[in-house]
Amino acid sequence: MIIVLRPNVTQGEIDHVIERIHELGLKPHLSKGEHRTIIGVIGDENKIRAEPLQAIAGVEQVLPILKPFKLAGREIHQADTVVQVGRVRIGGTAMAMIAGPCAIEGAEILDTIAGLVKKAGANILRGGAFKPRTSPYSFQGLGEEGLKMLRDVGQRHQMPTVTEVMDPRQAPLVDRYADMFQVGARNMQNFDLLKEVGQTRKPVLLKRGMSATVKDLLMSAEYILAEGNPNVVLCERGVRSFEDSTRNMLDMSAVPNVKGLSHLPIIVDPSHATGRPDLIPAMACAAVAAGADGVHVEVHSCPEKALSDGPQALLPARFAELMDRIRKLAEVVCKTL
Amino acid sequence: MIIVLRPNVTQGEIDHVIERIHELGLKPHLSKGEHRTIIGVIGDENKIRAEPLQAIAGVEQVLPILKPFKLAGREIHQADTVVQVGRVRIGGTAMAMIAGPCAIEGAEILDTIAGLVKKAGANILRGGAFKPRTSPYSFQGLGEEGLKMLRDVGQRHQMPTVTEVMDPRQAPLVDRYADMFQVGARNMQNFDLLKEVGQTRKPVLLKRGMSATVKDLLMSAEYILAEGNPNVVLCERGVRSFEDSTRNMLDMSAVPNVKGLSHLPIIVDPSHATGRPDLIPAMACAAVAAGADGVHVEVHSCPEKALSDGPQALLPARFAELMDRIRKLAEVVCKTL
Amino acid sequence: MIIVLRPNVTQGEIDHVIERIHELGLKPHLSKGEHRTIIGVIGDENKIRAEPLQAIAGVEQVLPILKPFKLAGREIHQADTVVQVGRVRIGGTAMAMIAGPCAIEGAEILDTIAGLVKKAGANILRGGAFKPRTSPYSFQGLGEEGLKMLRDVGQRHQMPTVTEVMDPRQAPLVDRYADMFQVGARNMQNFDLLKEVGQTRKPVLLKRGMSATVKDLLMSAEYILAEGNPNVVLCERGVRSFEDSTRNMLDMSAVPNVKGLSHLPIIVDPSHATGRPDLIPAMACAAVAAGADGVHVEVHSCPEKALSDGPQALLPARFAELMDRIRKLAEVVCKTL
Amino acid sequence: MIIVLRPNVTQGEIDHVIERIHELGLKPHLSKGEHRTIIGVIGDENKIRAEPLQAIAGVEQVLPILKPFKLAGREIHQADTVVQVGRVRIGGTAMAMIAGPCAIEGAEILDTIAGLVKKAGANILRGGAFKPRTSPYSFQGLGEEGLKMLRDVGQRHQMPTVTEVMDPRQAPLVDRYADMFQVGARNMQNFDLLKEVGQTRKPVLLKRGMSATVKDLLMSAEYILAEGNPNVVLCERGVRSFEDSTRNMLDMSAVPNVKGLSHLPIIVDPSHATGRPDLIPAMACAAVAAGADGVHVEVHSCPEKALSDGPQALLPARFAELMDRIRKLAEVVCKTL
Repeated sequence: MIIVLRPNVTQGEIDHVIERIHELGLKPHLSKGEHRTIIGVIGDENKIRAEPLQAIAGVEQVLPILKPFKLAGREIHQADTVVQVGRVRIGGTAMAMIAGPCAIEGAEILDTIAGLVKKAGANILRGGAFKPRTSPYSFQGLGEEGLKMLRDVGQRHQMPTVTEVMDPRQAPLVDRYADMFQVGARNMQNFDLLKEVGQTRKPVLLKRGMSATVKDLLMSAEYILAEGNPNVVLCERGVRSFEDSTRNMLDMSAVPNVKGLSHLPIIVDPSHATGRPDLIPAMACAAVAAGADGVHVEVHSCPEKALSDGPQALLPARFAELMDRIRKLAEVVCKTL
Repeated sequence: MIIVLRPNVTQGEIDHVIERIHELGLKPHLSKGEHRTIIGVIGDENKIRAEPLQAIAGVEQVLPILKPFKLAGREIHQADTVVQVGRVRIGGTAMAMIAGPCAIEGAEILDTIAGLVKKAGANILRGGAFKPRTSPYSFQGLGEEGLKMLRDVGQRHQMPTVTEVMDPRQAPLVDRYADMFQVGARNMQNFDLLKEVGQTRKPVLLKRGMSATVKDLLMSAEYILAEGNPNVVLCERGVRSFEDSTRNMLDMSAVPNVKGLSHLPIIVDPSHATGRPDLIPAMACAAVAAGADGVHVEVHSCPEKALSDGPQALLPARFAELMDRIRKLAEVVCKTL
Repeated sequence: MIIVLRPNVTQGEIDHVIERIHELGLKPHLSKGEHRTIIGVIGDENKIRAEPLQAIAGVEQVLPILKPFKLAGREIHQADTVVQVGRVRIGGTAMAMIAGPCAIEGAEILDTIAGLVKKAGANILRGGAFKPRTSPYSFQGLGEEGLKMLRDVGQRHQMPTVTEVMDPRQAPLVDRYADMFQVGARNMQNFDLLKEVGQTRKPVLLKRGMSATVKDLLMSAEYILAEGNPNVVLCERGVRSFEDSTRNMLDMSAVPNVKGLSHLPIIVDPSHATGRPDLIPAMACAAVAAGADGVHVEVHSCPEKALSDGPQALLPARFAELMDRIRKLAEVVCKTL
Repeated sequence: MIIVLRPNVTQGEIDHVIERIHELGLKPHLSKGEHRTIIGVIGDENKIRAEPLQAIAGVEQVLPILKPFKLAGREIHQADTVVQVGRVRIGGTAMAMIAGPCAIEGAEILDTIAGLVKKAGANILRGGAFKPRTSPYSFQGLGEEGLKMLRDVGQRHQMPTVTEVMDPRQAPLVDRYADMFQVGARNMQNFDLLKEVGQTRKPVLLKRGMSATVKDLLMSAEYILAEGNPNVVLCERGVRSFEDSTRNMLDMSAVPNVKGLSHLPIIVDPSHATGRPDLIPAMACAAVAAGADGVHVEVHSCPEKALSDGPQALLPARFAELMDRIRKLAEVVCKTL
């Protein structure tokens, strides 16, 4: 940690800062330059990070040096983490192809879609039973009934399942039926929910919040890891931007960026990122070429009758074409499906 | 609702769209222009809003005409809502001056700060017992013990209190001790939490999410109102932007913007918006001049020892100076403190 | 164009709007719904687009239906445009691999880099002689001397060249030496410069502005096309966002998005988009998989001594590795290098 | 400047960095911590700022300590600058009230508007003769003819005038007729234009670019100051954001933020920032309360017939009401009109 003092700092202010650092059991290291005096702080940066040193009179800036995510970071844990969801592995060279409808609407339609995406090459089935909707008047999901359908259909097609948990009180229920929790973008900083899923050992698909930096995403993963659950898969799903022709802006560079900082797998969800079926296939291909550990795509056999997010669903036939291309791209980047 | 069809739409596609509209019990109104065919839809727009018409072949755009927030909107409910928190009124010409420390750290320090802000003119006391922190290693709040301190100190200084609720399971506890719930920016779309506080009749201070549009904010208010709780006060507290010298970007225009769209009171929190004590007074003054129904400021008597967000706290003396200026500005814009 | 009237619009206001539309030689089409009255306007939307109908009393919204870019749009001109730069073709199945240093620093170093990138597979040489620098104290480029070096080195290695033009007064000079103009992100809406390069027939590489939407980019291309120059290649190079770990945010979805709206080729510049050599290869690969018509990469044989943007330059050896991977990916997406 | 080395840096890499610093005539100051080695660099930071030290192997981060704007910054030049435009002073306690139509459309209408805004209390007349329009098909301004009208009308009403210059080639012409140059948001980083107006001694109104940080704005001012022209007035006019109900997002905190960093005056333009007449008065009032040195408002006597930006123009009667309120607010913040 480096503390930069103001140009006109007094000796009394300098002494006070140094005293505070000693109080914290750390060692200050004073260095007077031509224009500024700076104080290097040696010792456990996490101890000092939480301290409001910036608030001390005479302090201009506090510059942290170390990364704040210890468990999610690659500095200590260098090898890629591989997360196991049922018999599917995510990470290393193994890719997850997660597909299914936005919301679970009924057993029959879910079964149809599951059969089609499985045949095309998907290996994990998704579907929402609890739906976070902007409007209180929109379809809110089938709840436990939906979870049962998901479990049954998943078992029939031998696909592990992932579904969203929105409320810490739902965690035990979702835990009973699904193979992987999804924590949605709107809940990326719902810290009580993160702690709750952190207390299980079930894999968690943690989606990036709409205004979260890559560092924020890793800090949210840290919440889950700190509770003892090492099975976290990150998901880039687009962030808010001024561009108004897509639902969000897909930050593709988050893939190599996260891979440099963290050992956790990261997949990409082009469905929510773009909200446009005409852009999803190109973005899914780009994600694979960028080194993502998987892709998450919403597929619906009749988008115009879907109860949630129909306009962004891919038709099964287009998903199958996409999978053909993804297989070839995966080979080029040395991944296996 | 207006449906714009693609340039090369076929008659079969047009017929199919019209059929779907009839199925929904609504009336289509076809209009063929030189370059495009459009279909106006007459009837309950909320019925059709949830339908994925955009997903139908041949449809280029679906343009909604009506606002999606019925209860929060001003179209039906035209008069300004005044929310009562203890003996304090917020809305109309009455302003809330909410002040206090970021986190409740102890009874004594809270009492000191409460005494100082009360004397300076604050009328509601704030303080966090449950703290949403980016890092799992940061101070997470004193919980129920903190809530008790807040209640006691508030009573002693005859100030109603507001404190954050982060988890639906905490709602009954917070309800017992505080006079107003705060739903923080990170939870603005925690829909289960919104429903939970919506089921009480206690006032709710709903903060705008970091990537929420004004419309999103009103839709989240709609969740609370739809559960039956009419006592919602909105709060602008800055949004994420590329500007890196302030913590967030304070969207001051949200004040008159919300006032045009909604009857609900709106206050401004310059502390979280800027994260910088040198900018807070100017932004608090600007908020009052812009017509805000109140201001929310973090004050700490020793920022350098605060357990949370110390660097953005105002010293009590500076808060008192600010209140002097606010009183004069409030008079110009015909508000009373 | 659809004009939505306010809920409480008077008959006098409606009559006035209709009169204005007739004055413009267009046909209004009134439609009264339950909650709103709307007026469809039939005729040349470009005529009405410039009119401030939104300013008329009683008007709530004006919703345009047609795209504002006629020449850049795909509605009239459906086939992909192929732009020829020297002997290199960009567009259709032909890809441009543009590489070279950020700034031209000297003939020798430019020659070295050109030899290396040519050998690795680049087909167009880049290098800046006029540099737009944030600080007036930074290296501003070698000017005409640099342009001569670029021409000579390009000829020696049989590579056509592209270089930035920043000022309309420089256009004749740049035209004399280079094979393609580059209009940089900061000048995307320097309309006098766009008109100037539009009056030549030399290809223009038009980079997206840091806060430009895809539609804004196409409107800027429209300026060049409207002057008679059809040889425009678009370039996605990242936009400003709240993410602070990359220089900009690469909007990869702009590639298929532009391809849907326009017939013009679009390439991707991962160097400026990310500003980080560790992310550039993954983003270049992703761009190819997304269907881009080329990639633009800054390469320097000694980044630590580069006079401009050294930290984001790729080393020649890493560029060569990247080209190997790009060749394989291009094959999968049916492009030729 | 502080250079942070990577965790696994080698001694050879450290030696190389130190050698490079010595080559630049600066003094390195090595400090080995538990987790990281850092090198403080003592000497002229501007010398090292332009050097690509980040590109050296083993370097993780380069942290600048000093501000890059020397002439615009307050560190050396501490007193507020007051810029004189004709007989109007801007800065210190003196406020500029700049008003007029977006574009100059004709002598008569300009004269009418000038008379009305002057009577209401405006002290500088604005009007565009060269218009930067997103579309090449929109009205582009009257050019020199418009400049003559502006000069004549300004003289008749004894108001100094400000008008936009878009192209360095127009600078002599604009210089001849107007009292103040305006450099628009789209040209904030048109460095050749900045140099051109910097070579005159005429005041320059420099508007913040749509994706410019406060620091970028000050760096652009630095370009003008470095050419020798000290008469720069900054203008906050909104930046691009995800909020889609306003044209831009007005960053009100830029006012005190700039005042802390720089001695230059800063005014606010709520017309372009919001694009909505219903929000302009509240934002103009907020700007005054925030300490702005002036306000810039577009006024038109018949917005529905304006040739440019009519929908965002204020009617003269509403402008007069606004001025009444501004006068009272200015008094509270100790400014004079």
